[in-house]
Amino acid sequence: MSVETIIKDMAEKAKKASVRMASLTSDQKNKALVDLAERIETSAEKLQSENRKDLDRARDMGLTDAMIDRLTLSDKVIASMADGLRYVAKLEDPVGAITKTWSRPNGLQVSRMRIPLGVIAMIYESRPNVTIDAAGLCLKAGNAIILRGGSEALHSNQALAALITESLTACGLPEHAAQVVPVRDRDAVNILLKQEESIDLIIPRGGESLIRAVVENSRIPVLKHYKGVCHVYVDKDGDHAMAENICLNAKAQRPGVCNAMETLLVHRDEAAGFLPRMAAAFKSVGVTLKGCEQTRAILPDVEPATEEDWATEYLDLILSVKVVRDMDEALAHIAAYSSKHTESIVTNDYARARRFIREADSSAVMVNASTRFNDGGELGLGAEIGISTSKLHAFGPMGLEELTTTKFVVFGDGQVRG
Amino acid sequence: MSVETIIKDMAEKAKKASVRMASLTSDQKNKALVDLAERIETSAEKLQSENRKDLDRARDMGLTDAMIDRLTLSDKVIASMADGLRYVAKLEDPVGAITKTWSRPNGLQVSRMRIPLGVIAMIYESRPNVTIDAAGLCLKAGNAIILRGGSEALHSNQALAALITESLTACGLPEHAAQVVPVRDRDAVNILLKQEESIDLIIPRGGESLIRAVVENSRIPVLKHYKGVCHVYVDKDGDHAMAENICLNAKAQRPGVCNAMETLLVHRDEAAGFLPRMAAAFKSVGVTLKGCEQTRAILPDVEPATEEDWATEYLDLILSVKVVRDMDEALAHIAAYSSKHTESIVTNDYARARRFIREADSSAVMVNASTRFNDGGELGLGAEIGISTSKLHAFGPMGLEELTTTKFVVFGDGQVRG
Repeated sequence: MSVETIIKDMAEKAKKASVRMASLTSDQKNKALVDLAERIETSAEKLQSENRKDLDRARDMGLTDAMIDRLTLSDKVIASMADGLRYVAKLEDPVGAITKTWSRPNGLQVSRMRIPLGVIAMIYESRPNVTIDAAGLCLKAGNAIILRGGSEALHSNQALAALITESLTACGLPEHAAQVVPVRDRDAVNILLKQEESIDLIIPRGGESLIRAVVENSRIPVLKHYKGVCHVYVDKDGDHAMAENICLNAKAQRPGVCNAMETLLVHRDEAAGFLPRMAAAFKSVGVTLKGCEQTRAILPDVEPATEEDWATEYLDLILSVKVVRDMDEALAHIAAYSSKHTESIVTNDYARARRFIREADSSAVMVNASTRFNDGGELGLGAEIGISTSKLHAFGPMGLEELTTTKFVVFGDGQVRG
Repeated sequence: MSVETIIKDMAEKAKKASVRMASLTSDQKNKALVDLAERIETSAEKLQSENRKDLDRARDMGLTDAMIDRLTLSDKVIASMADGLRYVAKLEDPVGAITKTWSRPNGLQVSRMRIPLGVIAMIYESRPNVTIDAAGLCLKAGNAIILRGGSEALHSNQALAALITESLTACGLPEHAAQVVPVRDRDAVNILLKQEESIDLIIPRGGESLIRAVVENSRIPVLKHYKGVCHVYVDKDGDHAMAENICLNAKAQRPGVCNAMETLLVHRDEAAGFLPRMAAAFKSVGVTLKGCEQTRAILPDVEPATEEDWATEYLDLILSVKVVRDMDEALAHIAAYSSKHTESIVTNDYARARRFIREADSSAVMVNASTRFNDGGELGLGAEIGISTSKLHAFGPMGLEELTTTKFVVFGDGQVRG
């Protein structure tokens, strides 16, 4: 079979499966998720032996240690996949929820009801645990899912796919509700992106180049974020101790993630007082600073930040620092360089807090809190399948609700239009 | 200037304008809409003289009477544009609304706040009144808009654009918040569809071929519907008088629109009793029927419906009729041929009403009501910019709310992530 035949066949089967998925009860879906959690635990040995094939190949191909780490199905990763499924099984099912109801003057009762999106295709790299995390969320929201993991994780993903299929059939769910693309062929992705008759949504997860390639080639809507260039702005009269604590957390608690701070903006009246203590705190945890001229006047050891630095997602213990004249300049800088992910202000001023909330055009805007909270779990969505920095459909963390849409449901007694 | 330069310049100006639009108060926006309504009324003569240029050209090019009718800025159309703006000015402003608020265990207060989408590009045919209707809704929702009307309406649209610009500047709104593409060049559309850095959403309105071309060439999310193949299913024991009334309305009250019925499905136990009276009613208003074999056994004069008929949006006084074994067959027919627009069931059975609501996978599902109610105004959204049959972002009529998205707003007291 050609890759094209394989992918088209998967897409059509997913579409058929999605029809039944949409009318399952929460109990039915939860049972399958818990069953899958058990199978993953009892099949740990088998999973790890398949995973070793991927790891051996990865070493032969000279993948970096970091990549091999992400690829490894350690005992801990296996336990967390199973725990994740049990957690999602406990979350409230969004499907069927009536989000609003009203009556029309002619007696029609109009409601909006949550329904699954249909078929979701997920395109991702390395980590095989995404296969289970994504399948769990999509199935719980009543969708069918096609998973296309990195080619370096093929054996691991196929082994996980076999367990998913066992759970689906054992629990009476449609067999093709979750499928893993079984070939390494790179064309598979481009063929997937053209199945607009069967697939409703594409979610890419990985580096910026993967995501741009998906967006450029897709005829299907794509939910994604390219990168997270997140800012913290320390406002005039902002609390220095609080600002230090927030900045340290936002930059250094986990620098390799999208909601870490990449640029610190400081009001000029606070710079001389705040920057030396902040620089000392950063130094103690190994953060390297790059600064504007005014920053360097206060912190002479700091290297100059270039135009490119302001737009860079370091994903590392590096931070750009800029002193700004006022809030106008802070907001203008954010508008120019932000990736619309997360912005935070440290302030005690009511009017400026309100203005920052209104004008910072990002998926999450925080007052006196770390940017690291822009995460589905931390914000209380239960779990997330990713964070969207595009405004259509979902803006910010996407949880179960964002994997659904609403339809209009209208109850009448024979009304016709006049 | 090349078309490319013109379009890119418009897109960048729109993006800048959208930043200010997002933080205007409702009063500011409403003032501009009412001002524009007045200008349209007082400039009727000028508008009609520009419109005559388009009409003369249209006649020279041999456009049909129907197309010329749609192109005409009659006194009535001018009044309705002005009334429409005043009506939108009175609608509740969605921007800034907090749709949900909750607290996290660590004391963070998390909200979702409605914000404008940013820049919307509207691509449409003929009717110049769309220029005003679309601009009114998009501006009210705090967006900037780029309007690309049909080339046959260029003079009319330019005259309307001049009034819009006057109102924007007179009322202190950003001058480029609403712009009309000033050239007929067909490349303009394809260049617009590539401005993904500046434009957030494309809304095409027109024939299926226009919409397909937009979807295939756009790198920007597109909200659209291709067509409306809407069904009414007369269930076992459904009320025949109610069914007759609903079917007559759904098919014949305004056959040329997307929410008109195109296929009637009748349960086999009702067919012999219902179809003759329904056929007589349809005959009296000039509806031609095409039927399946069972239909033709009851109504011998009816022509056979072909496979193609089941998928056809007639937009005319023509209707396909099919007798079905049961609800399974009705739902399977809808799943196979529906365009996901509107489906209605006429029933008195509780369980089947519930099942139809759950399983009919369309943007509006009705019980005992005419399909003609799938319309933003009729469902109580106030006004609509179109109806989406794709599930992402909006499914069904799109009103002011659907021209916005939400961002997360987080209030803390110094919280950091553990």
